[in-house]
Amino acid sequence: MSDSLLHNRWRRRRLLGAATAGGLAALGGHSGGRIAGAAPDARSEERATMSNDPLPSWNHGATKQAILDFVAAVTKDGGDRFVPIADRIATFDNDGTLWVEQPNYTQGFFAFDQIKTMAADHPEWKTEQPYAAILASDQQAMSKFTEHDLAAIIAATHFGMTTDQFDVDAKAWLETAKHPKFDQRFVECVYQPQLELLDYLRANAFQTFIVSGGGIDFLRNFAEETYGIPPSQVVGSSGQVTFKMQNGTPVLIKEAKIGSIDDKDGKPVNIHLHIGQKPILAFGNSDGDQQMLEYTDAGDRPRLMLLVHHDDAAREFAYDRTSSVGKLDTAWNEAVKRNWTVVSMKDDWARIFPFST
Amino acid sequence: MSDSLLHNRWRRRRLLGAATAGGLAALGGHSGGRIAGAAPDARSEERATMSNDPLPSWNHGATKQAILDFVAAVTKDGGDRFVPIADRIATFDNDGTLWVEQPNYTQGFFAFDQIKTMAADHPEWKTEQPYAAILASDQQAMSKFTEHDLAAIIAATHFGMTTDQFDVDAKAWLETAKHPKFDQRFVECVYQPQLELLDYLRANAFQTFIVSGGGIDFLRNFAEETYGIPPSQVVGSSGQVTFKMQNGTPVLIKEAKIGSIDDKDGKPVNIHLHIGQKPILAFGNSDGDQQMLEYTDAGDRPRLMLLVHHDDAAREFAYDRTSSVGKLDTAWNEAVKRNWTVVSMKDDWARIFPFST
Repeated sequence: MSDSLLHNRWRRRRLLGAATAGGLAALGGHSGGRIAGAAPDARSEERATMSNDPLPSWNHGATKQAILDFVAAVTKDGGDRFVPIADRIATFDNDGTLWVEQPNYTQGFFAFDQIKTMAADHPEWKTEQPYAAILASDQQAMSKFTEHDLAAIIAATHFGMTTDQFDVDAKAWLETAKHPKFDQRFVECVYQPQLELLDYLRANAFQTFIVSGGGIDFLRNFAEETYGIPPSQVVGSSGQVTFKMQNGTPVLIKEAKIGSIDDKDGKPVNIHLHIGQKPILAFGNSDGDQQMLEYTDAGDRPRLMLLVHHDDAAREFAYDRTSSVGKLDTAWNEAVKRNWTVVSMKDDWARIFPFST
Repeated sequence: MSDSLLHNRWRRRRLLGAATAGGLAALGGHSGGRIAGAAPDARSEERATMSNDPLPSWNHGATKQAILDFVAAVTKDGGDRFVPIADRIATFDNDGTLWVEQPNYTQGFFAFDQIKTMAADHPEWKTEQPYAAILASDQQAMSKFTEHDLAAIIAATHFGMTTDQFDVDAKAWLETAKHPKFDQRFVECVYQPQLELLDYLRANAFQTFIVSGGGIDFLRNFAEETYGIPPSQVVGSSGQVTFKMQNGTPVLIKEAKIGSIDDKDGKPVNIHLHIGQKPILAFGNSDGDQQMLEYTDAGDRPRLMLLVHHDDAAREFAYDRTSSVGKLDTAWNEAVKRNWTVVSMKDDWARIFPFST
């Protein structure tokens, strides 16, 4: 009850009826992705289901079929691959899996922009590196930032304020900031096929979690509106937070100390801490997701592991084994070895973004 | 949808119809605790609702009325205190709030018993303290255990194994171990009025979380079956965990390093980390819960803060300002000052346990 009502809060404007079809199927007790209905232009083996296709932005083929078959199997009451609702846990990486991560992580753009926003209160930044390079938009200097420079930028923009103040800053930025290539707000640069998949899974009583290397406080400022994923189902990297009374009111202060890096080994560790159950479906796109998929694959239940391969330079970006952002190398080898599903953005996705056609 | 189905998994045998009444009220769109129905023996102002009382183990009075009024107000669509479903977050302490914590924390009993169980693999414990005192059931020596002794016992029983092995150990113990005073399994020594309250809140589309100083891995081995609270809604103290490949299979190892102590300041900090939203209802019983209630009280939404006062030596235990376990002192002062609701176990609870009458 509460979950379906909860999702009523999230009135996403971009899901062209797929959500409704899935939702009705779930309410009517349908177990999978096959929903009877008129399908005037159907020609594939999905003939009877086309008009109510829960994944209209996925091209027909082995990948889409693997997803449909998996969901049908685990929701078929009495079937030999049935999974009880309480165990239908799905985890999604965010950067490069649910939204664009090139030419840089969105949270990186946020940090750089925040330096500019905060500069008025920091006149010393005009001459102090690494801030000066950002304020001068010195691309060459910025491309040479060291780990130490980046840590200083994150510290200045993410720590030392209350969690409430950070939320105000993040929301204000997300409201307007645009992606340099697509000239759309970052929160619009999300993958339409994945929005449909999230909805399809929830319509089949999955709980959908984000398990991202991005900051948990940053993610929670858009995850519910953008993906329909409430704060308690967002797992991410975190800094340490302290509780403090400020003029008689309790506040939480974001300290400049690492809490947990939710990447690689950190993903199964945080899945255990936050969710407390192994997922039966895990979706990533880079080596940072390898351990999450290995952990999922070690479960006793039927399970599905997927990786997005960014091979579509025309519609998005093409990068894999040598990319500094979203490197897909060892996880790809592992996928081949273990028969994980590799999703070709170019071949498997009919449409990339809500704003594209 | 998924939440109500999820709770079907939890077929609690002890809720005498109260859950059903509450559930039907929610499905029918009732907003609070007042449900029309026959009530032959009713005499109070709850005349019309008695037979479908969602909280039958709570005595009529100001405390019960405060709960009923709060839930009615926040669920009344269009009312000035209405709270959307997505924000109906309730957090409950566990030890002393949902189950017995005297004469010692249940997890303490578990640790001592585990030392005995594990002794066969540790012949050196026969002469090595603090283990030898436990093996000899030397109550006098055990009563003098230092912090260092207790840390050694926790380390031996809670760390150095995989999370899977810990779950096996905890489940086996919980299956049989009994409380020394009540001679009932610990998982039966839970408060019937609170089981009803959890159910009543969920029937009104609240999400119910445990926020306990107890170990998160320990709690998750009984919280779903005992309280209907799934693993992802359990927050507790945690040790650090590492991901490791063991014979080609990924496992999580519980390390002997503190992760987070979910007590006092740690409670709002972990509510932020795990839930990401301020509760609108928080229930505790000791000074360890004070900051959770302060944090809840600082919210913008209507909110209700409650403390159990253990004042019933006859039916349970009586302890407060000077107790070494579950001390209620500063939080009580704060409750008086801030008008939090203090629940008298003696006066407000008609029945304490599922096994009592």
